[in-house]
Amino acid sequence: MHAILDEGYVCHLGFVRDGAPVVLPTLYGRVGERLYVHGSTGSRPLRAAGLADPGLPVCLTVTHVDGLVLARSAFHHSINYRSVVVHGLAYDVTDAEEKRRALDALVDHVVPGRAADSRPANRKELAATAVVRLDLNEVSAKLRTGGANDEPEDLDLPHWAGVVPLRKGYGAPVADPGLAPGTALPGYLGALSC
Amino acid sequence: MHAILDEGYVCHLGFVRDGAPVVLPTLYGRVGERLYVHGSTGSRPLRAAGLADPGLPVCLTVTHVDGLVLARSAFHHSINYRSVVVHGLAYDVTDAEEKRRALDALVDHVVPGRAADSRPANRKELAATAVVRLDLNEVSAKLRTGGANDEPEDLDLPHWAGVVPLRKGYGAPVADPGLAPGTALPGYLGALSC
Repeated sequence: MHAILDEGYVCHLGFVRDGAPVVLPTLYGRVGERLYVHGSTGSRPLRAAGLADPGLPVCLTVTHVDGLVLARSAFHHSINYRSVVVHGLAYDVTDAEEKRRALDALVDHVVPGRAADSRPANRKELAATAVVRLDLNEVSAKLRTGGANDEPEDLDLPHWAGVVPLRKGYGAPVADPGLAPGTALPGYLGALSC
Repeated sequence: MHAILDEGYVCHLGFVRDGAPVVLPTLYGRVGERLYVHGSTGSRPLRAAGLADPGLPVCLTVTHVDGLVLARSAFHHSINYRSVVVHGLAYDVTDAEEKRRALDALVDHVVPGRAADSRPANRKELAATAVVRLDLNEVSAKLRTGGANDEPEDLDLPHWAGVVPLRKGYGAPVADPGLAPGTALPGYLGALSC
């Protein structure tokens, strides 16, 4: 489950507002058995979490689509995927040290090693950032792998069947035009497989 | 919004169960201003939708992550993305013709042109499949593009800043080992850019 969580960039965070579900994409980070999401202190889900006691019920889901599964029958079409669903209560992080570690984890989740190579958040930025914690207690993973599962009586049909793998990769990094003179592409970016 | 929806393979569908949010990844298809999701008639969200009247409140979200945005400051790290959030009531599709069109759309959403090149669902399969409709009435899109937005006083810091684009592509199709003799790779798969 950690591996599936760590591979994603964006989770889909669900919460209930006025009795109706809301699902928003957001960055996240993991520290051990805790997930963190962040937002501006004025944002909707985080404000709600800050007000709620003992916490706002949330559902955080991360999904990777690995392949398209084409079966001879329309019915058996599917996708290969891996997903993790976390249920729990979201709590505002108020401890300054935990907040700093969570924000580092959020940055390192996007690019491992990056937090140490950027200007840390200052007091004003920390105050403007709300961080919410969700413990990995109620977690489930689901995945599908493998080929098409056609009915035996369909195997002779003249339709192509199989899997089209989906690939993720990185394009060439595009440097900010105003980089300070002599700023080289850091090794942790060169190491991203293209 | 149609373009963002049509480019995704999986949406994240949120609903409320016992007062708590649930967010599940699922395939979807679009026909004009209607989205469809499907599942086995015994599945949780669809059963709930079938029982509800005038419909189950859902939130359906589709997100594409386009790039990693590295700023000189940790605070301004971000991602480039496009997302669409649809709120509304989900209704069980009971009309046979609408159900068939919706299932075709679900298959064609995975691989355009595929529905016509597979064995259509039979009566038993149609009965085992629940299809739920969500109209595109309350829809919002959000996106971020462009480079890092650093503070003016951070521009001279020696940290690399810029964007790492994320690329999606297809691997070589893996044919089912039991294809009927003479079954060629269809043109709509050869046309997928790798």
